[in-house]
Amino acid sequence: MSGGALAGIRVIDLTSVVVGPTTTLYLADCGADVIKVEAPGGDLMRTLGGPSKSGELSSKFMHFNRNKRSLVLDLKQERGRAALHRLIATADVFVANIRPAALERLELGAEALRGRYKRLVVCNLMGFGRGGRYRDRPAYDTIIQGLSGVADCNRRAAGEPRYVPMVFADHVVGLIAAQCITAALFQRERTGEGQAIEVPMFENMAAFVLAEHMGGLTFLPSRGPSGDLRLLDPMGKPVPTLDGYICVSANTDAQAFALFDIIGRPELKNDPRFSSVQARLANVRAYFDVRAMSFRTRTTAEWLEILAKADIPAGRMHTLESLVADEHLADTEFFRAVDHPVEGKIVDMQFPNRFSAGNRDDYRPPPLLGGDSVAILREIGYGGDEIDEMVKSKATIDGRRG
Amino acid sequence: MSGGALAGIRVIDLTSVVVGPTTTLYLADCGADVIKVEAPGGDLMRTLGGPSKSGELSSKFMHFNRNKRSLVLDLKQERGRAALHRLIATADVFVANIRPAALERLELGAEALRGRYKRLVVCNLMGFGRGGRYRDRPAYDTIIQGLSGVADCNRRAAGEPRYVPMVFADHVVGLIAAQCITAALFQRERTGEGQAIEVPMFENMAAFVLAEHMGGLTFLPSRGPSGDLRLLDPMGKPVPTLDGYICVSANTDAQAFALFDIIGRPELKNDPRFSSVQARLANVRAYFDVRAMSFRTRTTAEWLEILAKADIPAGRMHTLESLVADEHLADTEFFRAVDHPVEGKIVDMQFPNRFSAGNRDDYRPPPLLGGDSVAILREIGYGGDEIDEMVKSKATIDGRRG
Repeated sequence: MSGGALAGIRVIDLTSVVVGPTTTLYLADCGADVIKVEAPGGDLMRTLGGPSKSGELSSKFMHFNRNKRSLVLDLKQERGRAALHRLIATADVFVANIRPAALERLELGAEALRGRYKRLVVCNLMGFGRGGRYRDRPAYDTIIQGLSGVADCNRRAAGEPRYVPMVFADHVVGLIAAQCITAALFQRERTGEGQAIEVPMFENMAAFVLAEHMGGLTFLPSRGPSGDLRLLDPMGKPVPTLDGYICVSANTDAQAFALFDIIGRPELKNDPRFSSVQARLANVRAYFDVRAMSFRTRTTAEWLEILAKADIPAGRMHTLESLVADEHLADTEFFRAVDHPVEGKIVDMQFPNRFSAGNRDDYRPPPLLGGDSVAILREIGYGGDEIDEMVKSKATIDGRRG
Repeated sequence: MSGGALAGIRVIDLTSVVVGPTTTLYLADCGADVIKVEAPGGDLMRTLGGPSKSGELSSKFMHFNRNKRSLVLDLKQERGRAALHRLIATADVFVANIRPAALERLELGAEALRGRYKRLVVCNLMGFGRGGRYRDRPAYDTIIQGLSGVADCNRRAAGEPRYVPMVFADHVVGLIAAQCITAALFQRERTGEGQAIEVPMFENMAAFVLAEHMGGLTFLPSRGPSGDLRLLDPMGKPVPTLDGYICVSANTDAQAFALFDIIGRPELKNDPRFSSVQARLANVRAYFDVRAMSFRTRTTAEWLEILAKADIPAGRMHTLESLVADEHLADTEFFRAVDHPVEGKIVDMQFPNRFSAGNRDDYRPPPLLGGDSVAILREIGYGGDEIDEMVKSKATIDGRRG
């Protein structure tokens, strides 16, 4: 077995793009055997995430799909559906981000699965909760970012509506789903029974954003505007230095007063606008303006030394390139070069969390489309002839190469 | 018991601000009994997160701390430390975001705790992995955003380095920690043993950002620039309409071709720049420019109807205010008014995920500082006189009101 807290757990993964692959990545990194069931066309992220030698292993796909196996099944064919059910019978978890109506046509609705497999944990990732009027709408990351207030937060902070430049809603909701599934597995150990979980993206992202930004609207009647005004302040951003930018955070009195000292403005400690957490909150613009004007005189490296001595949290602003070359990450062997059977040498990132009982200790390179079809079909009892038949009828693809 | 997949699990929570409170919020929402152990000064977020009637229940604090109980212990006093150990002896999980050296001074280091409490799951949230040179640096959300490339992604997309305007790194890493803890609880059911987990913020956020944006640097030697150029494109943003903005996502051929039809540019389907996923990826700027120019002629509502008919994912851009008034969220009873004993009526957001075996079915309003001290000390066997002594010596605070 692979090792890791979820070793011995098998996950059948009918998801694609980001939200589902994120969910199962965290399960895989904890040791689960994740079988990625792909339609013959493959996960769109194989190509959408950028070019690759193979044409099917974009960099983004690879980072979200290491430690998983790929089985191609054409679920439009009876043979494909039958194989999927034989596989589910061996599994602990079933995850899908397919719309409920389509799942039901495939006899993969939560109720049908729970009826057949009492110990199965079924997780349906959906755009919108089933009780509301958006339930049949498509959910794409940008759509959810727009609906959940992410773009509006950026508008308030930066003057223009923008998305967070990541597949952000998917990625966050994938983490939430991974925790929900793991909690259901925990409960199954106690009760012996599986269950079905519904994880709606919109509601989760609304909660994610509004936990931070409901602000005065949290009180009834409201006691002020929405939004955490510190975070939404246009000046709440990295601060220019002589040669770049620096990130500085001085929240407590001790930190703020030390900041006033090192920038040569000790009198501000007694300024009623800045003399307490609440005062600085009420005068956040003025406080950030002081900060923004104070660091242009020295280089980032000089300031980092001064700030560290004064016990004021600060850090450099990495570019993506300098991040990849970061010395601390080198110390912790965060990056490692691995040989991919088709792509050649690639950079893998370590799962960063350390479990004293042991982390997953094997590594599977991101799979080719159907690269594990034959092995998995054999594992669930298919004979060589049956597999040949399935390949011939295109119910599966044998994606092995070389 | 509370119900929920983690019902019966007790969590001792020595965290504050956002990363730890997020971790334990998700555990609490799944039914765990989370005891928030606060120093006499209380979690900084009580004030930093905005004003409140009580002066200690900012809106942000409330959203991250519902369904938890607050016990004040002064760990600088022997009495406080003794009470904490009596409490830990009753617990399943211990979470802290205190620096390792300080934890060890309090005899709360992972090894010490594991030695005494074999079944305990210990989770240490840390800024940086212990094996690297940043290990003693302070980790604040903005610092981690700057270091992990978040601010640089915004620079590339929008021309200016900015943070995501949320306590984003904390919030994401809190979700990761919740999943890790839950996985360790699962494993404990199988092995009978607890373990210690280290969750470093920087490494987790580097992985979060680079999974999306390592791009061509994923290959060795590199095959192109870092970054998902679709997401980092300056035009990858909500699109102006006659009366506002609309969020539109057309990734597949079917979606892109339908888009060209409805904007009256069917000839673009045969344009080699736009005729496949890979072509649109290589010409993303031109593709987004077409999109940006095409929606100014009608209102958002008109476009939403047209796009829905053409099966092109689209949505409105909510403001935080319109999000709170969203009709789908009203349908699903996502928001509910609850009576807070001190703050009066407040808006709570439902945990959005549905577990068929049952969600947590009680609700605890966000606690006053030390509001549960007396009840918890009684539960772990303290007599009335002992509790009075502790209050008198300020080893605890009895925060009950009214």
